[in-house]
Amino acid sequence: MTEVNLGFYFLSELVGTAMLVLLGCGVVANVVLAKNKGFGGGFLMINWGWGLAVFAGVLVSAYSGALINPAVAIGMFIAGTITAPMFFLAIAAEMIGAVVGAVLVWITYKQHFDEEPDAANKLAVFSTGPQIRSYGWNLVTEIIGTFVLVFVIFAFADYGDIEVGVPGGLGPLTALPVALLVVAIGASLGGPTGYAINPARDLGPRIAHAILPIKGKGSSDWAYSWVPVVGPLIGGVLAALAAPVLLHLAG
Amino acid sequence: MTEVNLGFYFLSELVGTAMLVLLGCGVVANVVLAKNKGFGGGFLMINWGWGLAVFAGVLVSAYSGALINPAVAIGMFIAGTITAPMFFLAIAAEMIGAVVGAVLVWITYKQHFDEEPDAANKLAVFSTGPQIRSYGWNLVTEIIGTFVLVFVIFAFADYGDIEVGVPGGLGPLTALPVALLVVAIGASLGGPTGYAINPARDLGPRIAHAILPIKGKGSSDWAYSWVPVVGPLIGGVLAALAAPVLLHLAG
Amino acid sequence: MTEVNLGFYFLSELVGTAMLVLLGCGVVANVVLAKNKGFGGGFLMINWGWGLAVFAGVLVSAYSGALINPAVAIGMFIAGTITAPMFFLAIAAEMIGAVVGAVLVWITYKQHFDEEPDAANKLAVFSTGPQIRSYGWNLVTEIIGTFVLVFVIFAFADYGDIEVGVPGGLGPLTALPVALLVVAIGASLGGPTGYAINPARDLGPRIAHAILPIKGKGSSDWAYSWVPVVGPLIGGVLAALAAPVLLHLAG
Amino acid sequence: MTEVNLGFYFLSELVGTAMLVLLGCGVVANVVLAKNKGFGGGFLMINWGWGLAVFAGVLVSAYSGALINPAVAIGMFIAGTITAPMFFLAIAAEMIGAVVGAVLVWITYKQHFDEEPDAANKLAVFSTGPQIRSYGWNLVTEIIGTFVLVFVIFAFADYGDIEVGVPGGLGPLTALPVALLVVAIGASLGGPTGYAINPARDLGPRIAHAILPIKGKGSSDWAYSWVPVVGPLIGGVLAALAAPVLLHLAG
Repeated sequence: MTEVNLGFYFLSELVGTAMLVLLGCGVVANVVLAKNKGFGGGFLMINWGWGLAVFAGVLVSAYSGALINPAVAIGMFIAGTITAPMFFLAIAAEMIGAVVGAVLVWITYKQHFDEEPDAANKLAVFSTGPQIRSYGWNLVTEIIGTFVLVFVIFAFADYGDIEVGVPGGLGPLTALPVALLVVAIGASLGGPTGYAINPARDLGPRIAHAILPIKGKGSSDWAYSWVPVVGPLIGGVLAALAAPVLLHLAG
Repeated sequence: MTEVNLGFYFLSELVGTAMLVLLGCGVVANVVLAKNKGFGGGFLMINWGWGLAVFAGVLVSAYSGALINPAVAIGMFIAGTITAPMFFLAIAAEMIGAVVGAVLVWITYKQHFDEEPDAANKLAVFSTGPQIRSYGWNLVTEIIGTFVLVFVIFAFADYGDIEVGVPGGLGPLTALPVALLVVAIGASLGGPTGYAINPARDLGPRIAHAILPIKGKGSSDWAYSWVPVVGPLIGGVLAALAAPVLLHLAG
Repeated sequence: MTEVNLGFYFLSELVGTAMLVLLGCGVVANVVLAKNKGFGGGFLMINWGWGLAVFAGVLVSAYSGALINPAVAIGMFIAGTITAPMFFLAIAAEMIGAVVGAVLVWITYKQHFDEEPDAANKLAVFSTGPQIRSYGWNLVTEIIGTFVLVFVIFAFADYGDIEVGVPGGLGPLTALPVALLVVAIGASLGGPTGYAINPARDLGPRIAHAILPIKGKGSSDWAYSWVPVVGPLIGGVLAALAAPVLLHLAG
Repeated sequence: MTEVNLGFYFLSELVGTAMLVLLGCGVVANVVLAKNKGFGGGFLMINWGWGLAVFAGVLVSAYSGALINPAVAIGMFIAGTITAPMFFLAIAAEMIGAVVGAVLVWITYKQHFDEEPDAANKLAVFSTGPQIRSYGWNLVTEIIGTFVLVFVIFAFADYGDIEVGVPGGLGPLTALPVALLVVAIGASLGGPTGYAINPARDLGPRIAHAILPIKGKGSSDWAYSWVPVVGPLIGGVLAALAAPVLLHLAG
């Protein structure tokens, strides 16, 4: 690891997460808000949109190793890849970046938010919600989805591809697998809860939803908001504990 | 080939197959079980889900060369890539991993299994079934689909990409082609039988279906269960016999 | 260029084209024949299916440089990449391979051919047909589509990626761009004629359709059959003439 | 940078942009014009079509570094990657190439233009239009979409992948990320305005629409035409200003 400039580190995580949320929440806006060209485009379109949002987010967040997700950050912290100051800076940057990204989505789709009659669709652009509400089972689904995300990322880490503090340290060859992995998790495990699998991706936009003067908006559903924060963090911790045993065999 | 630790080898196959089945059967759950966000997402979504399930499974199963399929294992055994102990350990690990993956799918989608009224849809999440039942023709379809899988994998093997016993020996560049190949087989040859093309992927989840206390479940359709086991094994053997003649020209 | 074994060369083209047609015509069968799991899967599914069919075909046809298309072969012959004997052997092998692939599709989907009521759908699995019949305009569409295919392949050739007579000479990095290119041509230029863009891919299966005892089959539409042969050959020649001027700048 | 032949440079940009527009506008023709095989294929099919159009365009435009977009050109000019003569030649070549590509789309789909009853669908093949007309907000959407495009491309540039004046300087590994990025922007930010994100891609075909003797064509909607020119240029400038601060950290 080369010496890390913590200011650059913070900025890199902020930019990457803003890009992630702009493109990720953007595809949901396109599919669910009235009068869009992508209206009714289906769940596979949302899966590709979120996956490629990760792709773009990783590419612009090379300096910090592109965690852009507190669940990944906690896993990397447990694994010793990042230090405590880096961990806390990453969390803060990701939260701020997620709010920035969500505000940009609102601006991009401003007129469509104004013309959308259903308040639930407006919240769906920002944050996830369960199809069948049951905090326990919803939590389990988020834990499993995030476990898969962080666990498979550790398989990449084993290849020595994740470098921190190196501008341009992450190339397209690493961004693409993570993107495809997120398409996979969305398609395969995203049915019940909409796969937050990232506390910042869910909480940041929910804060934006609560603050922004969105026309005809409804509740920000704070009652559910802890599930897509706690679930992914648990999943990330479990993955960091499991990876050395199950992945890095004799490595 | 470096020296192989058979315990690590076993564990690697188990983990890879569990990941494969979790994401693969997961996408079917999302598309067929009531109230999911991906409900009615279509066959192409299932094809991408299974293909990317292979992608993730290969990535976490690097140590063992990521067979994660008895049909691939029998082909590699005939070709002399793996030894007899490795072959039998792989089969056992893949079966156990497939059961583990199927249980995780049930947990992830627990509420949707509970609310799904149709027992046939519940079985469809776990195991394949034919659109037009005729054991002979169904067998032929599975043989052809698996022949394509293993035959094309042998084309990769010719590139020297498959290494066994090397942690991190398989990188994203190998995982991606196999994933795309499985998308292709699903889209192109999966219409009649749902492309098991992997005895563990079908039999393991079928055992899980039989054992798990799934609400309102019906028959596990044991009458058909031998087709997606025998067909893929025949396809794998035929591919191993054909590859030296048709692929490794003057190699 | 290393020394080429013409027997291996012939076999390599035959195997690659059979794989191409098996997976390519297979996805059409899945989408158009009654009772398939992929029935009604849409044109994008067909585009991905044909694109990934090229992917698999290229991978198993490494020895010969994976032309698997007389329009590519004529372009490479004009460019001096292959000799006259290689050119004629390639054409013959591709035609035989295409017939073999088409027979395998019929076997894979045998029951679905039997239960499909519409003869036109059966022919559509094997060969292309125009949406608005007009031999002149249909020819133009096929010329443009094939020009794009061969012209962009020449852009790869400029990178020195195409080697002939080298087992394993083509790796996944070359197969993937060609596959994506075929997805692009299908989605973007395939609307009017169904993008044969390959004389063997269309004529071989048409011969198979005429010969095979397909239940309830109708005409093989020989009146149209010259269009997807002549059009692609013209497109390939034009691309070979244009490439040195427009692509290999100062190269 | 090696010495650049400006004639080759011009030709390379022209060819790349013609390929981009042929495949990009082509997929819209396939999806919106009556009687096509891809009719009603959905927005995700259009996203993939445009993304892979960029893929093919980049591959055939290697000599000039494949800007094929005035918004990218202005960003590269501000960054000092290209000189003023190269900048103006690129703009001119891209405009001419876009007209050429649009004419080829019309020829490819000639009969379908003739049989399409709705004049608005004919214009939609050539140029973008807003779902909710409001020049201010439409401009904002185009600025944001193009900012993402050029900003992420600068992340590639940081990797040293963009070379100008080198035949074959851009390989598939660079073309693919740009293509996926365009799929992402289309799916995520393309809902309100149809994502021109490229002045030449929109204005060139609009000129072709005005000039060509398209049967039953309506207005070319010149009132809107400045939005997809000015918006992308602003987005490109902003990205060039932001990239050194936000991306090239300590680089």
